[in-house]
Amino acid sequence: MTPAANFLPRDPNFDARCRDSFSRQPFMTHLGASLVELRPGFAEIRLPFAPFVRQQHGYVHGGAIASVLDSAAGYAAFSLMPADATVLTVEYKLNFVNPGEGEAVIARGRVVKSGRTLSVVQADAYARTGGKEVLIATSIQTLMALLGRHDTTSAKT
Amino acid sequence: MTPAANFLPRDPNFDARCRDSFSRQPFMTHLGASLVELRPGFAEIRLPFAPFVRQQHGYVHGGAIASVLDSAAGYAAFSLMPADATVLTVEYKLNFVNPGEGEAVIARGRVVKSGRTLSVVQADAYARTGGKEVLIATSIQTLMALLGRHDTTSAKT
Amino acid sequence: MTPAANFLPRDPNFDARCRDSFSRQPFMTHLGASLVELRPGFAEIRLPFAPFVRQQHGYVHGGAIASVLDSAAGYAAFSLMPADATVLTVEYKLNFVNPGEGEAVIARGRVVKSGRTLSVVQADAYARTGGKEVLIATSIQTLMALLGRHDTTSAKT
Amino acid sequence: MTPAANFLPRDPNFDARCRDSFSRQPFMTHLGASLVELRPGFAEIRLPFAPFVRQQHGYVHGGAIASVLDSAAGYAAFSLMPADATVLTVEYKLNFVNPGEGEAVIARGRVVKSGRTLSVVQADAYARTGGKEVLIATSIQTLMALLGRHDTTSAKT
Repeated sequence: MTPAANFLPRDPNFDARCRDSFSRQPFMTHLGASLVELRPGFAEIRLPFAPFVRQQHGYVHGGAIASVLDSAAGYAAFSLMPADATVLTVEYKLNFVNPGEGEAVIARGRVVKSGRTLSVVQADAYARTGGKEVLIATSIQTLMALLGRHDTTSAKT
Repeated sequence: MTPAANFLPRDPNFDARCRDSFSRQPFMTHLGASLVELRPGFAEIRLPFAPFVRQQHGYVHGGAIASVLDSAAGYAAFSLMPADATVLTVEYKLNFVNPGEGEAVIARGRVVKSGRTLSVVQADAYARTGGKEVLIATSIQTLMALLGRHDTTSAKT
Repeated sequence: MTPAANFLPRDPNFDARCRDSFSRQPFMTHLGASLVELRPGFAEIRLPFAPFVRQQHGYVHGGAIASVLDSAAGYAAFSLMPADATVLTVEYKLNFVNPGEGEAVIARGRVVKSGRTLSVVQADAYARTGGKEVLIATSIQTLMALLGRHDTTSAKT
Repeated sequence: MTPAANFLPRDPNFDARCRDSFSRQPFMTHLGASLVELRPGFAEIRLPFAPFVRQQHGYVHGGAIASVLDSAAGYAAFSLMPADATVLTVEYKLNFVNPGEGEAVIARGRVVKSGRTLSVVQADAYARTGGKEVLIATSIQTLMALLGRHDTTSAKT
């Protein structure tokens, strides 16, 4: 399915708001992941293949792939939310289709549906080597906007 | 659903085989996770709430929860596989039901169905504080046995 | 995971409200499915193995199993919602673990988490033959309460 | 993600094999669904909005949508399997993104990865009215080839 191409952000300051939120995630720092691109309804995260993200066969651990897919989907959805909202991941499902090896994992989240409360995001991960990319995982994710609760405050479901 | 209570391991040496495999996962070490319990068709992993597993609201990052659920399901399935097999995660789906906070995440994988090729595992994560546990995530996972390929060798799908 | 055992219904009239809603579903009638049991946070649906629910191998079609799992999860969640709400299925994931054959499919939905807006339900399907049941599918489902919109009116997401 | 565009069928007779299999599914007949298009790695199924596929709000029942998504994914995967194989659905996850109303549901399955044993398929459903289509559900599905067992024989997992 082709996700809707053009979304209008409800918050003109969405870029700074998302990048600030990402920078407050110690877990992304711990993995070495960075938010490399952001557009309304789209986010791309890059995870270099450091030795510490690997599993027992030398490939990148599925949990590391899930982690950057989770954040890519989260910021794709968050980019379209109003300024006074925060975002929660409700659920996701992912399939691993090829082993992760090369230079970096590239995770891309694209909003499929942006509702007032719920957003549906497709997020895919690629293994990049040189200029070449191979799909390693595909996911569908559901995110929730918590309105009236700014992202810099702690949130309870 | 109550997962089947009693599974007979095809490999009498399953405990050492699983623990050895877990110890070869740099990513689990990087998160600070440990394999605390193992029975045929069951695995429990403990992830202490270190500052580096947190997201922007101070709770444990969903990706860290997914990572230990992934490994818990993997070793629950792997415990029932023959000695000359390795395990691949095909896919999973997880729902986050409460924020993760407290002392540690406890992830438990229980095999629901152990087929020759595919296994289905239910894996749930709890936030533990003192002796109390709160469910934070529930998942269903599909794993695949790669027969004739020992876990210590590298594997391609 | 053991779903929470005891839920208090917000609407004392939940049983009549759910049964009335079920009776207004032409698709359940078309399949021959009936709502056989209802408790707060729990619903059981029975689908007899009529010739028309089968697929090309003679087993019950996965879509028929999904259909009764969908409704079982929906009414398990709906039983806990307030009187002026209606219910929407947000998403679900199901694994087929054994072929469906015998006398009837029994689908049971059990609420895992009942939030103000979202509910998470585990729903499992069994093939029943004589007094014996075999698990054929397991699912996790996310449902949404639409407050202020009674179930007898049409709803738009 | 853009599913791979070109797949080479392993069985030159794939079209007749898939259409014959579809015609042996009483459940698809019972729903009024038809297989309208088939290419290597792609299948499209059409489900008219008959009164009997509706739920309590007058929209098409989620189970009916799941049923045609299940078959669309199944035949997309089956089109690439060898002549002596049959296909089993391992699992799927679907999100409902808009209510189903109009003239017909169009379900399209596109293979993302076709492995020797497992296939991953993305299947999406649209509500068609006049020449216009609205996305109503998106899914990821995992299918399994059972080799050496022709589709016209009964299959056990």
